Amino acid sequence: MDTGLNRENILIEALPYIKRFHGSTIVIKFGGHIVIDEESIKNIIKDIILLKYVGMKPVIVHGGGPEITRVMNEMGIKPKSVDGLRITDEKTIEIARMVLIGNINTKIVSKIEKEGVKSIGLSGKDGKLFTARKKGKKKVEIEGEEKKIDLGYVGEIENVDPELIEIMTERSYIPVISPIAIGQTGISLNVNADSVAGRLAHELNARKLIMATNVDGVLKDPSDKSTLISELSIKESKSIIRDGTVEGGMIPKVKACINAVNKGVKKAHIINGEKNHSILLEIFTDEGIGTMIKKN
Amino acid sequence: MDTGLNRENILIEALPYIKRFHGSTIVIKFGGHIVIDEESIKNIIKDIILLKYVGMKPVIVHGGGPEITRVMNEMGIKPKSVDGLRITDEKTIEIARMVLIGNINTKIVSKIEKEGVKSIGLSGKDGKLFTARKKGKKKVEIEGEEKKIDLGYVGEIENVDPELIEIMTERSYIPVISPIAIGQTGISLNVNADSVAGRLAHELNARKLIMATNVDGVLKDPSDKSTLISELSIKESKSIIRDGTVEGGMIPKVKACINAVNKGVKKAHIINGEKNHSILLEIFTDEGIGTMIKKN
Amino acid sequence: MDTGLNRENILIEALPYIKRFHGSTIVIKFGGHIVIDEESIKNIIKDIILLKYVGMKPVIVHGGGPEITRVMNEMGIKPKSVDGLRITDEKTIEIARMVLIGNINTKIVSKIEKEGVKSIGLSGKDGKLFTARKKGKKKVEIEGEEKKIDLGYVGEIENVDPELIEIMTERSYIPVISPIAIGQTGISLNVNADSVAGRLAHELNARKLIMATNVDGVLKDPSDKSTLISELSIKESKSIIRDGTVEGGMIPKVKACINAVNKGVKKAHIINGEKNHSILLEIFTDEGIGTMIKKN
Amino acid sequence: MDTGLNRENILIEALPYIKRFHGSTIVIKFGGHIVIDEESIKNIIKDIILLKYVGMKPVIVHGGGPEITRVMNEMGIKPKSVDGLRITDEKTIEIARMVLIGNINTKIVSKIEKEGVKSIGLSGKDGKLFTARKKGKKKVEIEGEEKKIDLGYVGEIENVDPELIEIMTERSYIPVISPIAIGQTGISLNVNADSVAGRLAHELNARKLIMATNVDGVLKDPSDKSTLISELSIKESKSIIRDGTVEGGMIPKVKACINAVNKGVKKAHIINGEKNHSILLEIFTDEGIGTMIKKN
Amino acid sequence: MDTGLNRENILIEALPYIKRFHGSTIVIKFGGHIVIDEESIKNIIKDIILLKYVGMKPVIVHGGGPEITRVMNEMGIKPKSVDGLRITDEKTIEIARMVLIGNINTKIVSKIEKEGVKSIGLSGKDGKLFTARKKGKKKVEIEGEEKKIDLGYVGEIENVDPELIEIMTERSYIPVISPIAIGQTGISLNVNADSVAGRLAHELNARKLIMATNVDGVLKDPSDKSTLISELSIKESKSIIRDGTVEGGMIPKVKACINAVNKGVKKAHIINGEKNHSILLEIFTDEGIGTMIKKN
Amino acid sequence: MDTGLNRENILIEALPYIKRFHGSTIVIKFGGHIVIDEESIKNIIKDIILLKYVGMKPVIVHGGGPEITRVMNEMGIKPKSVDGLRITDEKTIEIARMVLIGNINTKIVSKIEKEGVKSIGLSGKDGKLFTARKKGKKKVEIEGEEKKIDLGYVGEIENVDPELIEIMTERSYIPVISPIAIGQTGISLNVNADSVAGRLAHELNARKLIMATNVDGVLKDPSDKSTLISELSIKESKSIIRDGTVEGGMIPKVKACINAVNKGVKKAHIINGEKNHSILLEIFTDEGIGTMIKKN
Repeated sequence: MDTGLNRENILIEALPYIKRFHGSTIVIKFGGHIVIDEESIKNIIKDIILLKYVGMKPVIVHGGGPEITRVMNEMGIKPKSVDGLRITDEKTIEIARMVLIGNINTKIVSKIEKEGVKSIGLSGKDGKLFTARKKGKKKVEIEGEEKKIDLGYVGEIENVDPELIEIMTERSYIPVISPIAIGQTGISLNVNADSVAGRLAHELNARKLIMATNVDGVLKDPSDKSTLISELSIKESKSIIRDGTVEGGMIPKVKACINAVNKGVKKAHIINGEKNHSILLEIFTDEGIGTMIKKN
Repeated sequence: MDTGLNRENILIEALPYIKRFHGSTIVIKFGGHIVIDEESIKNIIKDIILLKYVGMKPVIVHGGGPEITRVMNEMGIKPKSVDGLRITDEKTIEIARMVLIGNINTKIVSKIEKEGVKSIGLSGKDGKLFTARKKGKKKVEIEGEEKKIDLGYVGEIENVDPELIEIMTERSYIPVISPIAIGQTGISLNVNADSVAGRLAHELNARKLIMATNVDGVLKDPSDKSTLISELSIKESKSIIRDGTVEGGMIPKVKACINAVNKGVKKAHIINGEKNHSILLEIFTDEGIGTMIKKN
Repeated sequence: MDTGLNRENILIEALPYIKRFHGSTIVIKFGGHIVIDEESIKNIIKDIILLKYVGMKPVIVHGGGPEITRVMNEMGIKPKSVDGLRITDEKTIEIARMVLIGNINTKIVSKIEKEGVKSIGLSGKDGKLFTARKKGKKKVEIEGEEKKIDLGYVGEIENVDPELIEIMTERSYIPVISPIAIGQTGISLNVNADSVAGRLAHELNARKLIMATNVDGVLKDPSDKSTLISELSIKESKSIIRDGTVEGGMIPKVKACINAVNKGVKKAHIINGEKNHSILLEIFTDEGIGTMIKKN
Repeated sequence: MDTGLNRENILIEALPYIKRFHGSTIVIKFGGHIVIDEESIKNIIKDIILLKYVGMKPVIVHGGGPEITRVMNEMGIKPKSVDGLRITDEKTIEIARMVLIGNINTKIVSKIEKEGVKSIGLSGKDGKLFTARKKGKKKVEIEGEEKKIDLGYVGEIENVDPELIEIMTERSYIPVISPIAIGQTGISLNVNADSVAGRLAHELNARKLIMATNVDGVLKDPSDKSTLISELSIKESKSIIRDGTVEGGMIPKVKACINAVNKGVKKAHIINGEKNHSILLEIFTDEGIGTMIKKN
Repeated sequence: MDTGLNRENILIEALPYIKRFHGSTIVIKFGGHIVIDEESIKNIIKDIILLKYVGMKPVIVHGGGPEITRVMNEMGIKPKSVDGLRITDEKTIEIARMVLIGNINTKIVSKIEKEGVKSIGLSGKDGKLFTARKKGKKKVEIEGEEKKIDLGYVGEIENVDPELIEIMTERSYIPVISPIAIGQTGISLNVNADSVAGRLAHELNARKLIMATNVDGVLKDPSDKSTLISELSIKESKSIIRDGTVEGGMIPKVKACINAVNKGVKKAHIINGEKNHSILLEIFTDEGIGTMIKKN
Repeated sequence: MDTGLNRENILIEALPYIKRFHGSTIVIKFGGHIVIDEESIKNIIKDIILLKYVGMKPVIVHGGGPEITRVMNEMGIKPKSVDGLRITDEKTIEIARMVLIGNINTKIVSKIEKEGVKSIGLSGKDGKLFTARKKGKKKVEIEGEEKKIDLGYVGEIENVDPELIEIMTERSYIPVISPIAIGQTGISLNVNADSVAGRLAHELNARKLIMATNVDGVLKDPSDKSTLISELSIKESKSIIRDGTVEGGMIPKVKACINAVNKGVKKAHIINGEKNHSILLEIFTDEGIGTMIKKN
């Protein structure tokens, strides 16, 4: 009975947070590492369903790098690269599309449906949810000579039409979105999942953007977990990108957060999705557990 | 951080209950003892607001005996009675109406509004929410002689038109209802608040009826709290009324529960509203803390 | 048959007025004198129901001074005053609330419902219909010395949210409003019923504001009924307040009319609500029977 | 001022009738005699507009015999007849259509619009409001020999689709309907205006059917106005058709009333439309002024 | 089978045109010559029904000069004229109204309904679709003397309220409109059908205005069909009116086209409505068959 | 110009078919052979878009056998089989899901969007569009011994909830559906695309079910195209399955047609989707080009 009473107190303590985010759209992005870990994906979906039940409108964007690599390996296809730059050729985009839309997205939707909540899988192609243009060639200097390399079927988001997501969230579906865009001529283009999440958060007037990664947040010293930065202004965020504190895969995440917050999303969060209930902790406590980025 | 993690686990444990009652109407009745205790009323309202935020539609019915008595005393009016039977004369019904609608109801609505949730005070008169007919004269035997005594402005519910409540819950208001009915000729009639709650639970197709009293539930031995009966079927409930286990003010409560459950309300609960968060405990745990009445 | 024919002619003569006010909101305020007179209240309600049936949207605001005094007397409570200024202490506001909301409002709603028209009782607390701030202390000079006196639980309207009234009039209910506002901290504040009526007329874009009093209108010489002023511009209204022609309880009425007309209400009327069908006479004849205040 | 007070009393006396018919559809048919009399048509339209403003939904069906005859005369066309039976040949139906739809209907609609109320002219063709089948040949005996005579473009109502009328009354238009139906092959057929009114009253679930004629109602002795029958049951109505009390143009009127009442219209009335405000008198008084036909 | 395959190819070729005009309002005006020719009217209606079925919203405006003249002749009435100017006296407007609304409009509506499509006949009077003011007197010089001649019941469009057309097209009706307007005092006024079509095209934000006449379009040399002008800018259109290339009945058509295009209608077309399927040809081919007027 | 005139005549000839199917749902299934042939898929999509534009609601179900085989080969995976029965193991269902949902479905949706029409890709998982249960083990006799073989992740449709399709077709999207169902535990199950099409046609109250295959229809002698059967009743269809005329992949197609027609779909068609515009030919001509199955 004792624990029971505690339980109720905790529910009551959650009330102010529930009130604050009631009716708000929350865009949650999680990457491939989480998708392939059965325990992590199960936990994160439970959290998201809770958000839905207490009145928020969660929208999921997922990545899937590790899965794509796994399938390519299985098919005996070696990732192409020119001078160290990865190239997305026709074969690769086909596999990416199959893995992201056919495999990962479907899996997430199925898991949500299994919990009794309606869900729908979408990608940029559906109702032209987001279109992209092929990225221009990239200049690289090789042996003193400048060369332009075509990165292939990789795109940058051009236009977003959130109608379809709104139709579905209004009717209590949780939309799950794969980062495959449609290009002018109908071709598929791979776009960065972080940018998709950031841009959708902005276009949906989301209250929050949550990037669930496999690290604890932005660290001053990536090798030392105790150097987690709890809060960043836009200005500070830009500065730690410039000075190299942020590097690698964290860069597009921080950039997407900056863009979203600049366009009106109240707060963006980078958290460790592999930690149990990290989403709830970030939303239902003041201190949070990751890095929070806000305007000032 | 430790407690934080516990917190999230508890929220997640609440999920199945939240799911189960999502969108359901829950009728909650609390009596005068709770209304006059600042701490109890504050706590019970917090619980009810939480129910609202996690997707239920709470409807409040309140009593007010002690307050009516207090005001009558202040006005120097002595409660009338004939042969031990309390008589509600014109003066008394006027005071009951003033206290219930003008004082108690207003106070509850104000407390809810203060928490940022919309609320509206109603009684039987508004949109003919519920009408009553005057109770017939009561036969009593006095000194071997049978007499009929007119109990005055006391009524039994005749007709219920829940339209107004539905208009308001649809628009996210919490309705607070005083047990004053309108009679055929437009007169006010005092009706038992427990019956009002039971009848409304039935007419609104409520999922649950919760009677928040000042005892822990139905006790086998009223003087011994350890004899709490956790669960009763309708049959058992009727039997313990007949055999006298249930007595006094508990009788109309159990009867209202029986009627509601008979008409389709899934479960009815008699709990101690003075215990902190007893409503949440009853709803969000399997074991509950009071007496639960269900069909079989 | 003869009278019958006359009847039809009169209905036809009413047509232009019916057309003009079709679909318009009409705010009608009547005071405590009318409420306690069975004949007057019955007649005024009949008039208001007629307005509803010919397509207007009547909204009622009521006062209740005499009733409050009566109940206070019955309870043996003497109205407090400091240096002649009436003080609304905690006891007084409680009684005011009980009498206005619990007694008078309920009575009016019941009478309307009895006529087969749907009605609902409201006060400032319901859906935060109107909030008030406590009036500042009043400066008075006593024996050459300046003192500040706290008038107690008396407020001035701060914010009005007419949503609830609009929900109800759209669904053919006649709303009946008590002049009890909700303050910041959830406390009850007594506000002047004339100001409530004036402010609601403005916020509801009412076509007309009708003040049903117990005098014939604004009189040049209050002791001589033959000096009724039929029509006043805003400028004239202000001038007769300044020069003392208008005094006592008539001042807030004229001020409320001025404010409402200034904010877009077409016409405001001060009439004698105790005269039979004075509301209909004022609305359905060009000459009217009281004082009409308009912009120019 | 005196008459003013009377006026208000009369409005109040009209209240119960206004209540009773609020929201009801009232089908009013008037014939050609009224249409060509400027005074009569002006008055009858005023009455109908009043009905609309006090909340009823009037639907007008008109006839036009005298006008058709006038135009035929002007065009030098002699009404055809075979053995005394009038024949509607192609020329005649064309003129009927032009006069009814182009002239009379347009005139009525214009007069209503001039009063500031929206109106629309319709006939059976619009949205297939009502279709008809050509009447079969009529058997007549001439000089001992039986002959079959084709009456030409005359029809009997087959199917009614009231959608168009309902669209318009919902949007506050008064529909004005000419008795020209559309036949299977798209041809125009003249149908009896009384039957159209009766059938529409039934299909629209009208509360009342009013036949405004140029006589006072059903008379026991057509030559003696004092023999007016105030009330008839269906049984009585049928009997006075059989026994010849009702004759000529009154027969289809009474039959249409019988049919409408049989199909659920509460009451049907035959009144003198040339008498000032006879419609209002019939609706707003208990005694009425014409003949009322009801079920029993 | 061979032709069958061709058929499908042609349907597919129509697809871009169907897409382009999907959901667009198309105002089509045809004159009296077409109405009286059974073959032409049947064909033009088939075309219009096809437009409706492939997703456009056709609105028909018709004329009726030849029919009016025919009926006037039959009635032995000679068209009045003063000094060569035609005068529309009361008799004439009555006949115009009867012929246009009662005869021609009804006929068109019946033909559409016969094809299984819902249609409704309207004129300016219905819902005050369009009002007109009487044209001023016309100055003419006769024998060196200036005289002013009153042209009678002829009007110029003043105000258009397209609500009624929009109600009907939304519900899949094809509206058919007669060029009879309502004047201030409720009188009928004859207005030029070309102007009605042009003005409605503008007020309805039509995509196209099609004038179906009995000539092939605008000809450089009216006597030589081979001189058809396929395309005209507004500037060129004005110039060929000024220089006299366009004359007679073609002038109001070109002017209506100019006005409509100036107000936002994309393209206006003058085609030969007597040629089979000329409407479809003009809409479903790039080259068209008549004269097309566009902005530049 | 000549061909132009023909074109219009052909459009007009299509009118009766357009009318007949206006607003109807048409379920079209096409298999893997069509999907991989660029020309065929382009043509079939053009046809379907035309159906949409002339007012039908097309719903696409696709197969994808050849593509799945191709990808399996690329991945060096050999289709498993036990005693000649194909087994869908975990690897195989994963590839099927990726190919069907990620590759083929996406491709079809992209091609439709490219034509300017909104489309959305769905499978059984989305909103639990269709659920399936795993097929029971199959009994086979091997070397005189009876064995039960588990076919793996292959399912039979259990429940269909067409809500999502209806939401989308109402909003003018063309839904494209992959034959992957969701099982009880959230697993993916491969279901026969022909059954999916048949069942959806039934649940959506489709007017037509069109099976676009790579043969001309049902042939009496599969080796002789001239033996095409144009029309079959349900009875005849069942008989030619029993007598072996129909064999192989044609069996589930004919069975799906039988089931759909039995449940209320008017007509089912088996056509050659590789023939140009075969869908249009089947819909817009009376004779059709394939095999049509109807009730009797």
